[in-house]
Amino acid sequence: MADKNITVACIGLGRMGAGIATNIQRAGFHLTVHNRTPEKTERFVAAGARFARTPREAVEAADIVTTSLMDDASVLEVVNGADGILPGMRAGAVHLGTTTTSPNLSTRLAELHAARGSDYVAAHVLGRPDAAAAGKLVSLVAGKPKAIERARQVIDAYSARVILMGEDPAVASSMKLVGNFFLAGLVEIMGEAFAFAENRGVLAPFSEMVKTFLPGAQEYVDRIRSCDFDRAGFTLDAGLKDIRLILEAAAEVHVPLPCASLVRDRCIAAQARGLNQRDWSVFTAISRMDAGRSYESGAGRGAGA
Amino acid sequence: MADKNITVACIGLGRMGAGIATNIQRAGFHLTVHNRTPEKTERFVAAGARFARTPREAVEAADIVTTSLMDDASVLEVVNGADGILPGMRAGAVHLGTTTTSPNLSTRLAELHAARGSDYVAAHVLGRPDAAAAGKLVSLVAGKPKAIERARQVIDAYSARVILMGEDPAVASSMKLVGNFFLAGLVEIMGEAFAFAENRGVLAPFSEMVKTFLPGAQEYVDRIRSCDFDRAGFTLDAGLKDIRLILEAAAEVHVPLPCASLVRDRCIAAQARGLNQRDWSVFTAISRMDAGRSYESGAGRGAGA
Amino acid sequence: MADKNITVACIGLGRMGAGIATNIQRAGFHLTVHNRTPEKTERFVAAGARFARTPREAVEAADIVTTSLMDDASVLEVVNGADGILPGMRAGAVHLGTTTTSPNLSTRLAELHAARGSDYVAAHVLGRPDAAAAGKLVSLVAGKPKAIERARQVIDAYSARVILMGEDPAVASSMKLVGNFFLAGLVEIMGEAFAFAENRGVLAPFSEMVKTFLPGAQEYVDRIRSCDFDRAGFTLDAGLKDIRLILEAAAEVHVPLPCASLVRDRCIAAQARGLNQRDWSVFTAISRMDAGRSYESGAGRGAGA
Amino acid sequence: MADKNITVACIGLGRMGAGIATNIQRAGFHLTVHNRTPEKTERFVAAGARFARTPREAVEAADIVTTSLMDDASVLEVVNGADGILPGMRAGAVHLGTTTTSPNLSTRLAELHAARGSDYVAAHVLGRPDAAAAGKLVSLVAGKPKAIERARQVIDAYSARVILMGEDPAVASSMKLVGNFFLAGLVEIMGEAFAFAENRGVLAPFSEMVKTFLPGAQEYVDRIRSCDFDRAGFTLDAGLKDIRLILEAAAEVHVPLPCASLVRDRCIAAQARGLNQRDWSVFTAISRMDAGRSYESGAGRGAGA
Repeated sequence: MADKNITVACIGLGRMGAGIATNIQRAGFHLTVHNRTPEKTERFVAAGARFARTPREAVEAADIVTTSLMDDASVLEVVNGADGILPGMRAGAVHLGTTTTSPNLSTRLAELHAARGSDYVAAHVLGRPDAAAAGKLVSLVAGKPKAIERARQVIDAYSARVILMGEDPAVASSMKLVGNFFLAGLVEIMGEAFAFAENRGVLAPFSEMVKTFLPGAQEYVDRIRSCDFDRAGFTLDAGLKDIRLILEAAAEVHVPLPCASLVRDRCIAAQARGLNQRDWSVFTAISRMDAGRSYESGAGRGAGA
Repeated sequence: MADKNITVACIGLGRMGAGIATNIQRAGFHLTVHNRTPEKTERFVAAGARFARTPREAVEAADIVTTSLMDDASVLEVVNGADGILPGMRAGAVHLGTTTTSPNLSTRLAELHAARGSDYVAAHVLGRPDAAAAGKLVSLVAGKPKAIERARQVIDAYSARVILMGEDPAVASSMKLVGNFFLAGLVEIMGEAFAFAENRGVLAPFSEMVKTFLPGAQEYVDRIRSCDFDRAGFTLDAGLKDIRLILEAAAEVHVPLPCASLVRDRCIAAQARGLNQRDWSVFTAISRMDAGRSYESGAGRGAGA
Repeated sequence: MADKNITVACIGLGRMGAGIATNIQRAGFHLTVHNRTPEKTERFVAAGARFARTPREAVEAADIVTTSLMDDASVLEVVNGADGILPGMRAGAVHLGTTTTSPNLSTRLAELHAARGSDYVAAHVLGRPDAAAAGKLVSLVAGKPKAIERARQVIDAYSARVILMGEDPAVASSMKLVGNFFLAGLVEIMGEAFAFAENRGVLAPFSEMVKTFLPGAQEYVDRIRSCDFDRAGFTLDAGLKDIRLILEAAAEVHVPLPCASLVRDRCIAAQARGLNQRDWSVFTAISRMDAGRSYESGAGRGAGA
Repeated sequence: MADKNITVACIGLGRMGAGIATNIQRAGFHLTVHNRTPEKTERFVAAGARFARTPREAVEAADIVTTSLMDDASVLEVVNGADGILPGMRAGAVHLGTTTTSPNLSTRLAELHAARGSDYVAAHVLGRPDAAAAGKLVSLVAGKPKAIERARQVIDAYSARVILMGEDPAVASSMKLVGNFFLAGLVEIMGEAFAFAENRGVLAPFSEMVKTFLPGAQEYVDRIRSCDFDRAGFTLDAGLKDIRLILEAAAEVHVPLPCASLVRDRCIAAQARGLNQRDWSVFTAISRMDAGRSYESGAGRGAGA
């Protein structure tokens, strides 16, 4: 049961942020919500949350603040921009950053908060929107131990598992980016392998074999196998942003990632075909088209083959 | 318990073939053995097996014949070359081909046997030499149902699991090649991701995360993470042969596989550095070198990092 | 003026071979012709050439023999197969191999001829069918100096320029393959650059700039810029064969060629779209499609843009 | 002869900028110079130029202003930052931007100047520092016709050739980036081809052939062939910045450029080996190392092979 005295501000109520906030509210914490487009706050307010017009206003009474935003720029704006959270945070309050950011931004946020008496804890999440809604995210957490301790009940409210990564928030960000790279590479391989399997007449049994071998990737297997990209858990445009972040973070430490370069090129080719708002795994459709299939023909693929 | 009346001929006693033959012999079947270099037959003969000088001689009394060879050319030579098995096989005898071959060769072998009154069953195996020795291979089996039925006890002797793929042996070969491609791609991604993780300071926790996510790939994770390529389960030269087979089989059905092309290029770069006889996953060392590490520095990586 | 006493046998009268034979006949040499499909010999016979039913028959009276065939396999068959030229060649006769082959085949052909008292001279040609028809090929020639001397007048009949590469025919083959790789890579870069230029609105001026910089590549610039792939100087299927030869010859000496791998993947993707019989530079259309253009839309590109 | 009444301000006196300023001064224009590190202005002042402490001060009396800087950020800072040129420019003065920038920045600069009554003309240059010193650059020029007319004498002072690209400065920037991509791709192909040629024993004749085919690329041929990367016309770090600019400009119009991605990965691998300050074509050394050669072994390559 949540500590009745803890107040949480949730900033950013997109697909992931809404799932996180829902679980925090359901756990019984006092909730304040802010979102750039205010409509998305309505169902939380209807359930008892306080509405805040700006990030700064949202954090004034908060012990714990979560941000679930788009990218480095949007996080920095919410923290340090006009009406940002930094001047408004109470001493000892903790900012949980769930958005995937560059390791450099994590370092900078930690410094900005430290200079003000508040704390930054990187709390990046693994999982898609359905896992967020179910409170079953995996959280990669790094920051000062006391700050993590203060925020722990809140993190537990939306996480199936919490992996502690030490005191340096940049390490959690690095871990998240390496993990995202691994996943993107895996999706590319599935795209190529499924095209190969389809043209060789073994799509159905091969998909089943991959599911056995990779029980954690069942959703991706089904999506890619059946070319089911219309319901976007995470859009192609957002996916490409992540790939760029990965490529930059790797370049900073002098690591070329040819598979990430390949995925980047695939994503751009998929954008060129107007698929930006589909699920990000739609870039696998390029492999399928390069094997002589049309995008449309994929639609019913799940049934037969 | 094995049927006392079944005689099995095992041709090819390399790392994989020896493991298969050991389990067949242990199960109690009458065993005949043949290998190009006869020394490898000695321990089987010492345990009661009959020695055959040629493939043809090996199959004369056999109900079931297994071949565990190198590639398409060596399989075709053993089947159809001078002193090959084809003219020697008894009517109704079954040839179990465990070597990964092109789908085209499987089709051709099925035709050659059919014309002679014997049967070809593709029985390709997933697993490394230690799994073969332990009788824990996964077998991908395709051929005429009656032939599979006759050979089933023998297959079970060395398999932890048997996956039936229908009547067309070429389908089992396709499945094996798609699976090998998937594995090779996965190893490439691990190589890139581990180089990224190492230079970002998260090699140890990231390796643990991959093990959790891919329980079936623990051995590869440990090998690549600790740069432990000296004990070769499967050599780089053999691995490159498989990649070529994959690229050709995919090209035949008009499927480009950029990740397989990348792995091919990596393997060649590793050969150029004299690493041919290391474990095939040594091609991941190229990713590590491209991230500024020397091959030698990898040796003790397992301990620290 | 050609030496009236020299008899030349031309084997293989495809696009390149026909151009070569035409110039040899026009120069005044006695000509014998052979082609697998005899129709193609007719116009040469009408102009005075002798018709031969088999390669062996063609070379019986020949001082110089040219072969203009498809690939390693077809050259080896014509030389060493049933009714091949080897047993029929006169002592001291010279075989000019114009087909691009592997360096290994060149070495083998030199040995086969040496054992019989005839000579093999690699005489690979640079240039497309129109250059062959105009007698303006560039010939890369390697072999024993005396053999080259005997064949020189014939080579000059169809060449604008002869580059002597020493005594080892394999060296000329290597040079040809490296050159073909360079050209294929250049075409890939043009494909990417023109897609970039088109989407950025600078296709016309950029094409002109490339023509200035690469005066030797004008035809490719025009073809790719205007998506004019229907008249095939050299088909995609033939081009892909060359890329495979390049990749194998490079792998033998442990050289990965990522750009050749990329071109191979492009060619396969173009085959998957049914473009096999277009000019081989049609693989650049994949770059254009990946930039969001349809194949059909390229047709009129030359005019406007 | 230069119009005695025209005053030119040259901002940025690095390798390229110094060559440009030298030719402007030699042509007889009144010259004002500014550079972040003032030492580089000394030889111009000694020859009669006026020294300016800031960009703003530099342009106060100028009719024409040239900037030769590093990248988008440095150009924007000099134009629009503290003590930038924008508020200091006279009505009707023309800013010639020689630095390669993104098309977007060119558009923005044109707008900034237009709002102030001055003019922006993109005047990007093709050529290396030795061409700049010799006054033999090729200039890609776009802007309002009257502004180009006013600046033309100055452009001519350092250009061997001026290519007019119309009124939109962004078009000249696009052209420059497409051209740089083409060059980078060509260098990659040379790197691969020369490694192939070297291991096949045809490095010397192949290099000569490329020189014949690409007369404009002689310097690159010699550099790459002889592994002579110590004298940096343009450093690897600067080269990688250009590749990033290319990749971004292409992504904006949805064009994947696999060869640019490959070059990017090569550059990063070369940085990881500590080669940042060598000539940017040093990334071809990765191809050579992947073919089994050591970086050091390249040193004397020019002589023999």
